[in-house]
Amino acid sequence: MSDKISIAVIKRLPRYYRYLGDLLDKDIARISSKELSDRMGITASQIRQDLNNFGSFGQQGYGYNVELLYNEIKSILGLDKVYNLALIGAGNFGQTLVNYPNFAKRGFNFVALFDTNPAIIGTKVSGVEVFAATNLESFLAANHVDIVVLTTPASAAPGIAKTLAASNIKGIWNFSNSDIKVPAHITVENVRLTDSLMTLSYRINHDEILQRVGG
Amino acid sequence: MSDKISIAVIKRLPRYYRYLGDLLDKDIARISSKELSDRMGITASQIRQDLNNFGSFGQQGYGYNVELLYNEIKSILGLDKVYNLALIGAGNFGQTLVNYPNFAKRGFNFVALFDTNPAIIGTKVSGVEVFAATNLESFLAANHVDIVVLTTPASAAPGIAKTLAASNIKGIWNFSNSDIKVPAHITVENVRLTDSLMTLSYRINHDEILQRVGG
Repeated sequence: MSDKISIAVIKRLPRYYRYLGDLLDKDIARISSKELSDRMGITASQIRQDLNNFGSFGQQGYGYNVELLYNEIKSILGLDKVYNLALIGAGNFGQTLVNYPNFAKRGFNFVALFDTNPAIIGTKVSGVEVFAATNLESFLAANHVDIVVLTTPASAAPGIAKTLAASNIKGIWNFSNSDIKVPAHITVENVRLTDSLMTLSYRINHDEILQRVGG
Repeated sequence: MSDKISIAVIKRLPRYYRYLGDLLDKDIARISSKELSDRMGITASQIRQDLNNFGSFGQQGYGYNVELLYNEIKSILGLDKVYNLALIGAGNFGQTLVNYPNFAKRGFNFVALFDTNPAIIGTKVSGVEVFAATNLESFLAANHVDIVVLTTPASAAPGIAKTLAASNIKGIWNFSNSDIKVPAHITVENVRLTDSLMTLSYRINHDEILQRVGG
């Protein structure tokens, strides 16, 4: 496997994984890149190019073995493992994430929630306890946590990042709208919903802007 | 302006916009691609290449005029306009979006919410009324709505997509985990939180997988 796989390919892998899972559910054993292309709206040559990054899955004229490819992408994505998640910021949005059943199905299990709001500390969300944020450091020292989900306001993020930097966690799923700084051994995946909305507004306006700028 | 601007560049524009906004807040009038590079963690040559897609903003040796560049990117992103948003699926997650103050600040205004739950129909979220989902079609016919935010379960999405396809909306911000089909004049921006979590798990496992596969 090449170690120069582009982030664009990596971002398409979950999509392949979802589509192949749908095919498995329908008992479809083989699929050509052409058929997969029609379903996914990606060109067949792009599909072959993407999947070639991870070895040779297809056989000329026979298409892809759906189950093999599904399992290999599952393993490439690290979804053959189980992860312990702690969520910091158990407000409306944080609770939505904890209540979402698909994460547990994929092996992402919430083990603890943290918040500063006394009204929810000690309560449970989908069976997971909300602890006081002041307990974060000692909890991370005493328990195995792989991923921290950060759903606090941006202002709280830098302080929390310091605590996380000194812990054994592997990754941060960052919804906090703050560019947090942690050592390189901790992977940060930023989710910025406003950016996605701006991309939509760009695309809605694209043709009109092209005319205005004269391109 | 080239009409072949890649989706990767477009996805970086909101980031430039945010950083330039921060600089404006700090009364910084000019910035070199080198300084912007240090702040954003993107190479200076990438920044010059990205911004060259939209005309010539920088002056050799003088850097970028922050306010000019900020306003131009704002216009490119379509953020110099105001958009009317209707949200379908006013549960926990939908309500989080409506309550989020940053959307209104950017010109995205919720005008109506729709749900099938009798317990919340007729109530208001941040001052915006929740209507019965059965009123969607007539509402869209009688009112100006630019963007529909879809936060329903996946199973409800195909039926709603049919109603939207026949309406005058311009875009759908789709959180429904369903690949909805609408005519080409309606732009769909899909947000799949599970995909983002899978990308994180890929990145956490990347080095280890490289060794196992022998790459």
